[in-house]
Amino acid sequence: MEIKVLKDILSANEQIAQRNRQLLDRNGVFAVNLMSSPGAGKTSLILQTIKGLKGKVKIGVIEGDVSSSLDAEIVGKEGVPVLQINTGGECHLDANMTQSALSNMPLQDVELLIIENVGNLICTAEFALGAHKKVLVSSTPEGHDKPLKYPLMFHEVDIVLINKIDLLPYLSFDTETFSRGVRGINEKVEIFPVSCTTGQGIERWVSWLLTQMSRK
Amino acid sequence: MEIKVLKDILSANEQIAQRNRQLLDRNGVFAVNLMSSPGAGKTSLILQTIKGLKGKVKIGVIEGDVSSSLDAEIVGKEGVPVLQINTGGECHLDANMTQSALSNMPLQDVELLIIENVGNLICTAEFALGAHKKVLVSSTPEGHDKPLKYPLMFHEVDIVLINKIDLLPYLSFDTETFSRGVRGINEKVEIFPVSCTTGQGIERWVSWLLTQMSRK
Repeated sequence: MEIKVLKDILSANEQIAQRNRQLLDRNGVFAVNLMSSPGAGKTSLILQTIKGLKGKVKIGVIEGDVSSSLDAEIVGKEGVPVLQINTGGECHLDANMTQSALSNMPLQDVELLIIENVGNLICTAEFALGAHKKVLVSSTPEGHDKPLKYPLMFHEVDIVLINKIDLLPYLSFDTETFSRGVRGINEKVEIFPVSCTTGQGIERWVSWLLTQMSRK
Repeated sequence: MEIKVLKDILSANEQIAQRNRQLLDRNGVFAVNLMSSPGAGKTSLILQTIKGLKGKVKIGVIEGDVSSSLDAEIVGKEGVPVLQINTGGECHLDANMTQSALSNMPLQDVELLIIENVGNLICTAEFALGAHKKVLVSSTPEGHDKPLKYPLMFHEVDIVLINKIDLLPYLSFDTETFSRGVRGINEKVEIFPVSCTTGQGIERWVSWLLTQMSRK
């Protein structure tokens, strides 16, 4: 019975997500759904992406959080259009919340829309928002066992950024073990090591984004 | 309508949690519900706690994960009774899952039961398990803004361990800002800095546990 309810919810969500995708496509907007654990570096990645694409691509940002508008304030300082969604307890964004945000976003002035989801490795993976690509930020201090413990997330995403590689000398994180774990779940996924603190690897990520946008 | 359903679920959960508590009390078991983001150090804290209380307190462990039995295998090597709960997608343990695990745990041989919840800062905070105390492991790489972004969790817990303080020299984490954020939500909470890698601060945590157990 409970499973039936969940299926209905997911199917209703999927329909709205498809409408979101159509709206994005009509406006020539490429959107990514950015997910991670709390504090893995989603907002820092957005700041590095804005910096890396300045003057090249018009960016818009939707910030999803249970509570607070901290991230929207930080990103807003970069002079890009930004909207905060507070889920008020919900542990993930859904297509309906995204739809509301899209109707308030100046889509004609946006080429790349980054949707920062709630910090959560489980529930966020289940709900499509209508974005073109799903991006996971996984950070080195979380440990290399994460793919085995949160398989759905690693299965769902198109690219995994291993963030905080500047901390590798101080951790027992093994990049090989991590990558093997990811590939065991998702053969086709891209894996890029980055540091949003030092900027290492950001050029490759930005170039990946530009390639995806040109293919759309 | 959706809120009504959630209330019913929470109330049913609360009743089972109370029965769990009675079962624990009848067996003289003190239980903690250990929560955190993915990879903040719950399992490492359990290993340090077993080491710190060896020969003093009989420990049992329940490991909660969406998938895998990695943590149970690691903890099992320490020679304590350990049970793995796989939630199969659910983002938190609940009282019912805990009840099943309790019925398989040799409670007469346990004085301290550590229940490691699923790595999640949102959903786990909503569901009582029947434990006597709620413990949050918050790690320095996650950043000092977490209390403002996940207020329910910080409101619900009795103690916050700031883990991975060995990484402080390499991070912009500000302990004062973090602690102020926590206290703004939860005046009475205890805050202990620890490192489960170096063992720093573990003695104080273990001594806090012994005090709580003696007061029970």
